[in-house]
Amino acid sequence: MYRDSKTRTIVKAITWRITATLTTIGLVYLFTGQIQTAVEVGVLEMTAKLLFYYFHERLWDRLMFGRVEVPPFVLWITGIPRSGKTTLGDMVYKKLEKEGIKIQRLDSHDVRPLFPETGFTRDEVNSHIKRVGHLTSMMENNGISTIASFVSPFTESRDFVRNICQNYIEVYLKTTADEISEKYGCELYEKARQGLVKDVAGMDIKYETSSQTELVIEMCDLSLEKATDIIVDYLKKNNL
Amino acid sequence: MYRDSKTRTIVKAITWRITATLTTIGLVYLFTGQIQTAVEVGVLEMTAKLLFYYFHERLWDRLMFGRVEVPPFVLWITGIPRSGKTTLGDMVYKKLEKEGIKIQRLDSHDVRPLFPETGFTRDEVNSHIKRVGHLTSMMENNGISTIASFVSPFTESRDFVRNICQNYIEVYLKTTADEISEKYGCELYEKARQGLVKDVAGMDIKYETSSQTELVIEMCDLSLEKATDIIVDYLKKNNL
Repeated sequence: MYRDSKTRTIVKAITWRITATLTTIGLVYLFTGQIQTAVEVGVLEMTAKLLFYYFHERLWDRLMFGRVEVPPFVLWITGIPRSGKTTLGDMVYKKLEKEGIKIQRLDSHDVRPLFPETGFTRDEVNSHIKRVGHLTSMMENNGISTIASFVSPFTESRDFVRNICQNYIEVYLKTTADEISEKYGCELYEKARQGLVKDVAGMDIKYETSSQTELVIEMCDLSLEKATDIIVDYLKKNNL
Repeated sequence: MYRDSKTRTIVKAITWRITATLTTIGLVYLFTGQIQTAVEVGVLEMTAKLLFYYFHERLWDRLMFGRVEVPPFVLWITGIPRSGKTTLGDMVYKKLEKEGIKIQRLDSHDVRPLFPETGFTRDEVNSHIKRVGHLTSMMENNGISTIASFVSPFTESRDFVRNICQNYIEVYLKTTADEISEKYGCELYEKARQGLVKDVAGMDIKYETSSQTELVIEMCDLSLEKATDIIVDYLKKNNL
């Protein structure tokens, strides 16, 4: 929660006083035709009202009446490994942070101290994602937006998060393991091809798409900057 | 984060206008000695400035300059089972909530969906408490205060939470298993006495006190209302 500092109140009182006293001087001149009287009233008014305005502001700062909360959102970036989730999440985070919006970034390393290591079976992955979902929901209930980036390949757990959150926006980074391997090379997919690792989304684990996904971004067609703009525009269009 | 609603701005403009136009009428009368001119200037001024004030307010609502965050805190209530942690935490929560302060309540049932069930060995309890600590720290970093109530009998994990949080206040509800059994009866302690359950703080697990604890509340001497007041007063005295 924010409170006005005294400096804010003082500067605000000054910008208002300039607007208001100029109006008064103009009005008094209009009625009396005397520029001297107009300026004298103006000077006295300025002194008295700067003080009154200051205390009026301080009083209102204590009142919650009419203060509305900016609705928080849960931006959920999903896609197979190395599809660009973390980088894109960080880029959107930085862009929104500059505008003074409070956001908690949630990537796998952000939740590691919170949740113990879990395995890669369907049940374990679903449980882990649901836990992260409970966290995003708790943040949302406290007015804090989150940007979460997790592979989260199963619709069951993604839909669970969608249901417990108010403003859930799913962003699916659409690409394939072959595309990624071709563009950047990828040790993980190489190992999976050789059968050295199992449970890799995009290889032996099928990524489950959903018709409910708010934004599907084709990663082979777009730069990360463009993708960031698309997401930020979507949030703004939806007043988030 | 909060933004001013248009209603708030309008009501605020009216309360200010009454203060300000009465001042103007007084001043013009003082200078001209003409009550009619004074009232006419006042009426025109009221119309013009209500509008100007409204837009001045809307503009300032967009500026973050001078808005300061109310510092969040982590209120950590600790003590042996049935010492009154949950009830006291809820009472402090309700009292502060009324004053418009954003707080997340964290009791064992609040964190159950987040963290998997853990055991009762020293290491498991410490890990669980540290996880809760990471959560309180994450909330604090986002400007949200928390009221956590956990047995948390070991100084190791309580000090860990203290170290990762900015405004950590430990409240120890001091009492003994015998006192609780005598006052209210307690199935848990009875079973522990019969050797049917193990790892019970206050019985076979020693509650580790700490010299760093901010508030030690002797539960046998005080009503819960008094204890609530002590905690709320402490927070206010420390500007939290």
